[in-house]
Parts: sequence; C-alpha cells; structure tokens
Amino acid sequence: MKRGKLFVLSGPSGVGKSTILKDLAQRQEFYFSVSATTRDPRPGEENGVHYHFHTAEEFQKLIEENALLEWAEYVGNYYGTPAKYVDEAMESGRNVILDIEVQGAGQVKESRPEAVRIFIAPPSWEELERRLTERGTDTAEKIEKRLARAKEEFESAKNYDYIVVNTTVKAAVCELEAIMIAEHCRPAERIAMIENTMK
Amino acid sequence: MKRGKLFVLSGPSGVGKSTILKDLAQRQEFYFSVSATTRDPRPGEENGVHYHFHTAEEFQKLIEENALLEWAEYVGNYYGTPAKYVDEAMESGRNVILDIEVQGAGQVKESRPEAVRIFIAPPSWEELERRLTERGTDTAEKIEKRLARAKEEFESAKNYDYIVVNTTVKAAVCELEAIMIAEHCRPAERIAMIENTMK
Repeated sequence: MKRGKLFVLSGPSGVGKSTILKDLAQRQEFYFSVSATTRDPRPGEENGVHYHFHTAEEFQKLIEENALLEWAEYVGNYYGTPAKYVDEAMESGRNVILDIEVQGAGQVKESRPEAVRIFIAPPSWEELERRLTERGTDTAEKIEKRLARAKEEFESAKNYDYIVVNTTVKAAVCELEAIMIAEHCRPAERIAMIENTMK
Repeated sequence: MKRGKLFVLSGPSGVGKSTILKDLAQRQEFYFSVSATTRDPRPGEENGVHYHFHTAEEFQKLIEENALLEWAEYVGNYYGTPAKYVDEAMESGRNVILDIEVQGAGQVKESRPEAVRIFIAPPSWEELERRLTERGTDTAEKIEKRLARAKEEFESAKNYDYIVVNTTVKAAVCELEAIMIAEHCRPAERIAMIENTMK
C-alpha cells in the first residue's frame, strides 16, 4: 500500500493558507493535523477536532516521551503536533498537512527529514497588507506588526523545499497539488511501490 | 522574465517516451532538444529538425569547445546534445526536454547540476516485453537484449530525481506536468521571480 507523505505549510498571517486548504480539501483527501495545547477550550471547541486539549503535566509528558513533532510556548500556553495521529494517517496511505510557523517547521524537519516543506508567500507586501486590512480583525498597529513578522518569516522561505505564491487561490492550489503529485514520484516512494512488479 | 528549466528524460526502449512527449506537446509548449550527429542524413531527414548534421571534424570541435551537454559514440557515429539551443530556449522562458539514455543523463547532471532528471519506468517487465513485441520491429532475440538492457538501466532509476511509471499515457503525462510545475516552485526559481515585488 502507498504510504502517505508529510507536508508542512508555513506562511505569514493573512496570506490565505486556510482558504487554500479549504479549497484543496474539496479536491482531495488528506489528514489536516490537529494540534495539542494546554490552553482552555473555547465555547464550541471539541477535543480531538479543534485541538487535543491537555493539562500542563500531560503536555510535559508528551515532550519527554518525544511524542511531539514540534512544540512551542505562546503567551503562557503550550502548543504542539502529536506524532501519533500523523503517523497513523500516513500508515493508512493518507497525505498529512501541518500548518505551522517557521520555527515549528524547522523542528519537524529535524525529526522527520523526509517532510516536504512549502512556504506560502503573498504576491507582494502591498497585497498582504490589503488582505490583512480587509479582514478587519486587527488594528493598524497590529497589522504593522504582522507585516514586520511576515518579512522576517520570508527570510526563511529560501530554506523551504517549495514556495507557492498565493496570487489566486486556484493557482496556489494547482501548484500545491502538483507538488504533492511530484513528491510521490520520488525514487524512494516509487521503488518501494513498484518493487513487486519490477523484479 | 521566468527562465525555462532543463528536464532530462530517460527510460528503456519501448517504455513509451515518444507517445508521452507527443501528448505533452499537445498540452504545453517546450523545446525538445535536437541532437547533433556525425551520421549521414536518411531520406526525408532535415538538418536542424531531426538532427544537427555535422562532419567528424566539426563534432570534434564541438567536444573541444565544451559546446555539448553530453555526447557518446554509437556504432561508429557520434551523437550529442548541443548546449547552444538548450540555453537559448531556456533564456526565452521555455522548458527544455532532453530524451537521452542513462549515461548521457549522468553527463548532463555534471555540467548542469540544476537539471531535473526523470526516469520513465514501465509498470512491469511483462508489460514492457508486451509493448516491445507488439511494436513488431524487433526479433525475439533483440527483444531479449532490450529487456536485459532495460533492467540494467533501471538500476540507475534510483539516482534520478523522479520516477514516472507509464501505466497509462494520461497518468504519466499528468505526473510529468506536475513535476514541471513543482520544479518551478523551487525557492531559487521563485525568489528570483518575486524579488521585485517582495522588497
């Protein structure tokens, strides 16, 4: 059976990752990783759906047991990617997509060197600013901070395996799908798959 | 302007490379490299279309001037890939496809490390044998030789960047196109392309 592959997506806030992933989900099946966290569930959030909710002690144990592909602390709470569900999905032949920021992506690359890292970039800084402004959720000051952070993150883009520019959702999804197909044509994948017929 | 990329295709005789390339040409524009050779033109063959025909002296000069991406001698004649047309096509933004055997592909990788190498594999040896037999151009003995050579070549497949299995022409072309799209999403390509908008 064909094993799924691990894809790590990063990109600045407002670049349109959620929209791209929603569109991709209409076109193909993949496992979108659910993070573990120590923060309290918000109303309507379900355990195992929006997050895997854990106590600080449980989370600490996950770290010690090497059960997280990456983790970080953010304003007093812990967030991380449990390896278990990722591995199960891949074993069952599903591709896995992680949506994590640049530093987490670096951690994943260390524990899973075969992970394919894709950076989603805006077509221009002006366009990213426009999208953040249109979203209407942030103050001008917060948008400035997000833009500065985005420019910092973009410095890491050159270390990714691929850069997808989100000019239109359609074009970005097309490139993402092409990358996923291409990565399944890698010799390591292919030779394992065809070894029975090519003896 | 977006620069074209260099793709090197290899695969055993009878695997269906010509059919795949013919189908791909219906779907997108690319420059299919024309080889240089010292052999005499056959009736109907045009210089610059089927081959670039050269005298042995001219060919020797091309070798000395490093003007060939790869070259080999085959039953008393020389064959090679002139760098000039490949570079011109890439400069003008066109992807270039070379159809060359395993050893030539190795030479290209040395002179052009950025070349993307794709091995076209048959779905099984039985299927390759069937295709060679159906073609009706070879004796049983020659088919045996081709199969033995194909198995030898397949040993090199693991060193290629990608392996495309020609189960159906449609699926193979789809994978080939995906690889071409994906390779244009590489950071080196992308950052050069978007550097003006991402300052």
